[in-house]
This record gives sequence, structure tokens and C-alpha cells, in this order.
Amino acid sequence: MGDSKSIPEHDVIIVGAGPAALTAAIYTTREDIETLLFERGVVGGLAAVTDKIDNYPGFPNGVEGLKLAGELQKQAERFGAKIELGEVSAIEDQNEWKLLKTTDGDKKARAVLIATGSDYKKIGVPGEEEFYARGVHYCATCDGAFYRDKRLVVVGGGNSAFQEAIFLTRFASHIDLLVRSTVKASDVLEDEMQKFVKEGKVTIHLGTATDEVVGEEGKGVTKVMGTQDGKKVEFLADGVFVFVGLKPNSQFVAESKIELDDIGFIKTNPDLETAIPGVFAAGDIRSGATMQIASAAGEGATAALKIREYLEGRPHPVQN
Amino acid sequence: MGDSKSIPEHDVIIVGAGPAALTAAIYTTREDIETLLFERGVVGGLAAVTDKIDNYPGFPNGVEGLKLAGELQKQAERFGAKIELGEVSAIEDQNEWKLLKTTDGDKKARAVLIATGSDYKKIGVPGEEEFYARGVHYCATCDGAFYRDKRLVVVGGGNSAFQEAIFLTRFASHIDLLVRSTVKASDVLEDEMQKFVKEGKVTIHLGTATDEVVGEEGKGVTKVMGTQDGKKVEFLADGVFVFVGLKPNSQFVAESKIELDDIGFIKTNPDLETAIPGVFAAGDIRSGATMQIASAAGEGATAALKIREYLEGRPHPVQN
Repeated sequence: MGDSKSIPEHDVIIVGAGPAALTAAIYTTREDIETLLFERGVVGGLAAVTDKIDNYPGFPNGVEGLKLAGELQKQAERFGAKIELGEVSAIEDQNEWKLLKTTDGDKKARAVLIATGSDYKKIGVPGEEEFYARGVHYCATCDGAFYRDKRLVVVGGGNSAFQEAIFLTRFASHIDLLVRSTVKASDVLEDEMQKFVKEGKVTIHLGTATDEVVGEEGKGVTKVMGTQDGKKVEFLADGVFVFVGLKPNSQFVAESKIELDDIGFIKTNPDLETAIPGVFAAGDIRSGATMQIASAAGEGATAALKIREYLEGRPHPVQN
Repeated sequence: MGDSKSIPEHDVIIVGAGPAALTAAIYTTREDIETLLFERGVVGGLAAVTDKIDNYPGFPNGVEGLKLAGELQKQAERFGAKIELGEVSAIEDQNEWKLLKTTDGDKKARAVLIATGSDYKKIGVPGEEEFYARGVHYCATCDGAFYRDKRLVVVGGGNSAFQEAIFLTRFASHIDLLVRSTVKASDVLEDEMQKFVKEGKVTIHLGTATDEVVGEEGKGVTKVMGTQDGKKVEFLADGVFVFVGLKPNSQFVAESKIELDDIGFIKTNPDLETAIPGVFAAGDIRSGATMQIASAAGEGATAALKIREYLEGRPHPVQN
């Protein structure tokens, strides 16, 4: 045990610093539970790189993602949360302690919250990053309502692309659905989609690769370039929604006892606890997550209360 | 079916208009799902009558409860939510439709969200209402941190009173715990409490009735008057925390198929759906609720997505 003494010990380590992580930190630190957060990218997570958030409750006229992220960070730091930039590469259960391998060396924590989120898979074409959140979107629930009576391109051929394209017909005047090879969506969704195809609301383009998102500075996206049967094609569009999958940031727990679902999201029980006692998960990394900031923040608060219970060694009888 | 034609039909009816309800309405109406809310008390629920909220994520310096409630209402109404003042007295499953008996007559909805919250049980003594949220509190997680190095009185003798009094020792300089008859808390909690009693941090007063909360305008609570062994006693205090139970507002579903837990909270599955398909529950009314605004709002968002799935007749494959 000799040199293990020198491993820094913390009450709680939170992996990630997005809305779920920061909300959990607001709760733990406000209750004097010492808390360290590790963030490998941007504090605020996906929220921070979202142009405008219209449905985070409490901001009737919407709020810029960067502003909301800043407010969450300020609030967590006000109560004493420490945010370290760095990456966690592994987590090991040592019963009373959880050992974390990090870019800043080994760390121990009594309890851990995993709130590393998920990334939307990109198609990797010119213009996609440039117009991110300003014409190129990955969440219809979040950003669909900005495209009332506008033309959209939707990219993808699986369940989520069909599902979300159908949803976007509520807003868009017309949708071009670009499917790289063949349709992989369920028959039910394909049948339902036919209604919109017949109405002329949706046009499905099979075997169509998406090559470039084209736009103008200040004006946003104007069209999408593609290739079909070896020929160049283009689609006028005010916005592009990409649904080619999600990549949960759970690689670092692959060697641990934590259970993942088929896609790689972390499974939890109703108390948000993973298969390792004392290790919790909240937000977009959790199996069943809704990819909504409000839900992530809510889970962060709930996880913090469950972590407190865990640290105290008994359930928290809030209801009696 | 003759006169059933005249029953007004809605896409979604939400019972309640607190943070869970208003957040759900922000989501449903922003997606053009017509939504009517019923509120029998105050729009904003318990949040609206809370003096200052320090842990709602996004407001680093805290926010007045009334202001947050107003912002949530504005945001929901911006997207078209309609709030009606009135009470729902019963809910009946008619398969495709749910029939609600209300003070404004019968209403039908394709889906229902129950977000009626819970009320903290009061002790019913002079001063309790007058100093509500300005010295008299019912949630230690919410308001405990306002009492660093202050004297507190805690009222109650059950698990939650002991649990929360132990928690409040993090902040308070001293706690007088007033137990009306005998201790009903678990042995584990009683043992743990003894540590704080020995330290002189907590004094337990058995057989002590709480008679009055005394304070001064502008200064807040100054003391609590009680009766012990037929004699008047008084306890100096900067604040009073009352933990004598919660009353979930679920009476109106008593005759329905909706399942309640022992205390009367509504049971839901992981999709927040009750035992009646198409009827969902979110926030403080839900069995397992944390009584936190952030969690309630998060559940409201999640419930809205699940309601959309229900209305569309299929699951929402957000993760693939």
C-alpha cells in the first residue's frame, strides 16, 4: 500500500463538465461535498457549442449556449467546484475507493459521476463544421422549430433519420432526404414516410452521397451538394439535419465492470447508479437519455442527491 | 355517443402548472402539440412561493422563486400553452381518450401529464405561514445552506426529521430538535444522531409540542415557543425546518387504475408512464421524486418526449 498513500483523494470526481456534470457539482459543493470535475473538451459540453437554446426552462426568449454554459460554470464554481482540463482513461473499483487513471496521474474518489455525454456522428464534409448550429443540426427536437416554412435537407437512412424527418415535416415546407445507400429504417417508419412522400412534402434520394454544405457568411446555409449515380446533384436548403448516429463517450469504461447497452450508452438503475456501486451516470451518456439539456441537468441534480446518500451509507427518506 | 360529441377534445392536458408541468408544456407546444394546463393554486407551484432558489441550474446568483415561475410561464405561453385556473377531480381511461372531470366541465385528452406536485405537511401554528420561506422551511437541500453558523429549530421525530437534522449540522451552529411524542426514526439514524448530541451540536427535546414561530418584520424568525411537560419553553432560532411529512396531490386519481405507493405518490415506469397508458407523471408527485426544481423540470422535458412518442404510436429512436 506504500506509495498508494500519495494518490490524491477526493470525495467526488465528476467525469465531464456539461450541464449534467455542472448541475451535480452545484448540488454537491453547495452541501460541502468536495468535488473535482474533469473535462477533456469544452466546459458546458454540447450546450456550449449550441448557438441558441430555446427550450431550456427559465429563459423565455431563449439563451445562447455559450452563455448558459458560462452561467452553469459560474454557479458550480461559486460553491467551490474545481474544474480541471484533462482526460480520464480508466476507472477501477477498489470498493471504498474508485481509482481513476487521468492525464494528471492517478486519482481516488469515494464516489464518481460519469457525465461525459455523447457526440453526434458527423458526415465529415466541407461546410459541416463551419455551419455547425448555424444551419447544420443534429437534434430535431432542439432546433426543428427554427425552420418553420423553410426548406430542409435531412441526411441519413436509419430509424432516427426517418423518425426525425417525419417530425420535421411539422415545420419545414419541404424536405430532401439524402440516403447514402439503401433505407435501413423499420417498415413501420417507411410506411409512415410514404404519406409525406405522396403529399410532396418529402423527397427521398437513395444512393445519394452528401458532399458539401454550402452557405454564405451572415446568411447561413443555402444548399447541399451531393453525388447520385456518379453525377453531381444539388439541393436548395435553409438548413441541414444530420442523423447518422450517436457516439457515447464511454470508451474509457470499456475495461471496467460498468455495463453498456448495444450502442455503448451506460446502463443505470432508477437511482442512476451503474453496475459499480458508488459510480453513477447522468445526462447524454446514460442509456435512455433524451439528449435534452433540461433532462441532463435534472439528472445531474438527482445523481448528486443519490451520491450524497451513497456517501452517507443510507437512503435519503425525502418522502416520509 | 350523442352528447359526448360536445366534450372539448385536446391533444394533451397537463394537470398542474409547476416547473415539471410548464417545462413539459414548453416542449409539447413548441412542437405544435396543442396543450391545456389546469392549475388549482399558483402557477409555478412550490417554486413560485419560494423566496430564493440557489440551486436551479443557470442562475449563478440564485433567482427569486416568483421570477423563475414567471419566466417558465412566459416561455410556455410563448409557444402557445393555455393555462386554465381550475381543478381536476377525476380521470377515466377510455383507451384512445382520457376523460377528465374538471371544475370547467368534462374534458377529453389523447394524453395526460399529471404534475400536481406534493405539499409539505404543515404543523399549523401561528407564525408558520407568515414566515414561510423567510425563516420557516421544509426542504434542507434547498434552504439549509442559507443557515451557515446559525441556530436552527427542527420539528419532527421520524426518519426525514432525523436525516435532515443530521444534514443540517453541516451548516448550523446548533440545532434544537423538537419531537412531539417519541422518536419514530430508525435505530441507524438514532445512533448516528447520538454523535451530534454528544458533540453538543444537537439537543433533542422529546414530548415537546411546537406552539408558535416568533419573528420580527424585516428581521425574520427569532425564536420558537413550545410546551414540554405542561410548561412553556422557548428556543432561540434564526430558522425553523419542519419535517412532518409530505402530502402528494394525488387524491383525484384515487378511483382510477393509476397505481400509488404507500404514501400516495404516483408510480411510473422508466418512461414516466403510469399504470394507464397515455397518462404520464412527472415532478414531485412521482414516487421517488427528489423534490428539486431541476429534477422536476428535467422530468417534464422527458415526459413531453415520451408523450410525443405515445401520440405518434411508436418509440422515438433518439439513440440510433
